[in-house]
Amino acid sequence: MFATTTRFAPLPAGAVSAAGSVTFPRGYRAEGVHSGLKRRRRDVGVLRSEVPAVSAAFYTTNRAAAAPVLLTRDEGANGAFQAVVVNAANANACTGPRGELDARRMRDLTAELLGLPPERVAVSSTGVIGEPLPMAVIEKGIRRASAGISEDGGEHFAAAIRTTDRSEKQGALSVAVRGGEVRLGFAAKGAGMIAPNMATTLCFVTCDAAVPHVDWRAMLSAGVQRSFNRITVDAQESTNDMVLGLANGASGIALRDGDVERLAEALHAGLLAMALAVVADGEGSTTTVRLRVTGADSASEAERVARAVADSPLVKTSIYGRDANWGRVVQAAGMVLSADGDGPLACDVAFDGLTIARRSMPVGLDESDELRLLEALSAPELDLSVNLHRGRSVSVVYFSDLTHEYVRVNAGART
Amino acid sequence: MFATTTRFAPLPAGAVSAAGSVTFPRGYRAEGVHSGLKRRRRDVGVLRSEVPAVSAAFYTTNRAAAAPVLLTRDEGANGAFQAVVVNAANANACTGPRGELDARRMRDLTAELLGLPPERVAVSSTGVIGEPLPMAVIEKGIRRASAGISEDGGEHFAAAIRTTDRSEKQGALSVAVRGGEVRLGFAAKGAGMIAPNMATTLCFVTCDAAVPHVDWRAMLSAGVQRSFNRITVDAQESTNDMVLGLANGASGIALRDGDVERLAEALHAGLLAMALAVVADGEGSTTTVRLRVTGADSASEAERVARAVADSPLVKTSIYGRDANWGRVVQAAGMVLSADGDGPLACDVAFDGLTIARRSMPVGLDESDELRLLEALSAPELDLSVNLHRGRSVSVVYFSDLTHEYVRVNAGART
Repeated sequence: MFATTTRFAPLPAGAVSAAGSVTFPRGYRAEGVHSGLKRRRRDVGVLRSEVPAVSAAFYTTNRAAAAPVLLTRDEGANGAFQAVVVNAANANACTGPRGELDARRMRDLTAELLGLPPERVAVSSTGVIGEPLPMAVIEKGIRRASAGISEDGGEHFAAAIRTTDRSEKQGALSVAVRGGEVRLGFAAKGAGMIAPNMATTLCFVTCDAAVPHVDWRAMLSAGVQRSFNRITVDAQESTNDMVLGLANGASGIALRDGDVERLAEALHAGLLAMALAVVADGEGSTTTVRLRVTGADSASEAERVARAVADSPLVKTSIYGRDANWGRVVQAAGMVLSADGDGPLACDVAFDGLTIARRSMPVGLDESDELRLLEALSAPELDLSVNLHRGRSVSVVYFSDLTHEYVRVNAGART
Repeated sequence: MFATTTRFAPLPAGAVSAAGSVTFPRGYRAEGVHSGLKRRRRDVGVLRSEVPAVSAAFYTTNRAAAAPVLLTRDEGANGAFQAVVVNAANANACTGPRGELDARRMRDLTAELLGLPPERVAVSSTGVIGEPLPMAVIEKGIRRASAGISEDGGEHFAAAIRTTDRSEKQGALSVAVRGGEVRLGFAAKGAGMIAPNMATTLCFVTCDAAVPHVDWRAMLSAGVQRSFNRITVDAQESTNDMVLGLANGASGIALRDGDVERLAEALHAGLLAMALAVVADGEGSTTTVRLRVTGADSASEAERVARAVADSPLVKTSIYGRDANWGRVVQAAGMVLSADGDGPLACDVAFDGLTIARRSMPVGLDESDELRLLEALSAPELDLSVNLHRGRSVSVVYFSDLTHEYVRVNAGART
């Protein structure tokens, strides 16, 4: 079962949710252990495939990208990874030449313990920026995790990649195709620094279908575009973001044409469920909002308005306060629209399908409308839509509210 | 005296701070009254000059600009205003045709009561978006304020433009020039929705020098660029921003060449003090940060990095938490830098002149450094500098921290 269920990510026909995580697909083993980077929780994870897997990865575009990201991106066997080593609590970012050596050591040690060429091991870190990795602790963790990998270890692995996450983010899907059933497994982390550009947070996807590299890469790319690249918690793109997908063919089932689309749809639903779990767990978040901007005069305008509304601290705090403050929505939209010649912004704003402003003016609501509005604002998932009446372009973004807890978490101890 | 003193805005030679506000310069009368828009405080203000004043105004570029902004901008005697009418508690924004009529009514009534042509009256509103103005209440306020204007009324006027501001923002300067002394008066408001583009918040400036329109406009424009356009509280550009400057010549002193520069410098210092008072009073703000980005490869890159750091909720909350979290500074900078070919970002970060990261790596600090850092982080004004080592361009931005109080204010009753 997916850790978070959401009405925003329905499963396509033929896909069934299952118990488990990245070891649900055949031919994967994993483990996550407590090495001592965190006080009590698991913090080092290892995942391996029986055989080199058809692979695709997407990395942060942050110019201050962390050492493990650069190592994996620039020296990894990008089309054919076979293992992943990951630690939480320390990002190994802004750590200079020593950080590069440490990332390399994590990779080489894992490769040695698993008997693999180093370039087949992807390295990933997440946590505090700017502190050197305590390598003695991590090496001990890598040794224990590598020795302990098993077909039941997926949940331990998912636990080991958490930082400020309130819960594990994992899931598994079974997808019916001609010739039988192929499987997908997911593990993700992320709660702050969430505003994607190409990729976000950490997310590892396993699959046991035999799928051509070009198809696997295309479906993962499309899925990321429509999921992790559509969410924002605090508009901050991290130094360590990575989405990595492995398809090892261990099911023995080679996908035929229509089945590729089937798998792609299930993959998209799984990635969206993971991404929404990240939003729902956004630091301090109490509400996940699905914002749909329509009627923009270009795709880039739709995107700009969606980001402006989703990242407005005024909109985010009003949703936390259960206030359908459409004026702040219009203000945020107006801020990023070009002031071309055709008069002031006249847009419609609807919460949960109920239009409360039309052409930038308030709509009179009766008592039952007010009740419905309050109910919608009190639910954990909220639909917000904005029609700009300027054209036909659309953008959808998912975001969290801004709460006291966000400030508490981020003004407190370093994370 | 300026309501807020700040080491970031020193007065130039020849300028002396004085008691008072917009009625400190000669030839101005003003009043602010309690009409009932706010529960207890003054909420309607009127300011008039004896004679039509050389005028310059800067308006919000928000596409959802409020009715009073559009009326004043499009139909006002922009070079020669003689009066201002302003109300707090209601922005008259997103109020449609009725809002246009209401703004016009505010203007025409004030003009009638003061015996002026309507186009000489600037209209300004600030407060909640999307609710119709209670005109009966406002008209009563305009009548009382117009009847009550006096040479001592500047502070009442400054009080009447407050919304969530914790205090009045006002000040007065005396500037020594050849031929005697000319005077400047200031009243401003603003605490949230502060991220300027051309103008921000409300700020009214009075001056009694006789100064050519072209010079007055140029010095006000330059002053706004270096003050109100350099501050951010929450990256939100409002629907109602306006900076309006009046110079009525009532001192009888016509400025000669060098004196224009003198006045310009004093005007800039006064505008910066007002803008910094807005940051210091940013909703929930406990610290004003002066961020200096150097070593950018272009002016636009310097600006982009400064905005990214100043508007990062992670940077803002860490400053609230008194944590010199330079990693979040590097992460925010890296997010908006183009990933061109010359390797990862290697920047220096200094708090209060103390470098704590060099080339994106931590610098070892001794105990006295740590003490100094803690002291700097505990002060109400903090210097933060970032050297990108990519070129020679510079940008300076002033911003506030993000606190529990910001969330409380904005998740609570509508403002």
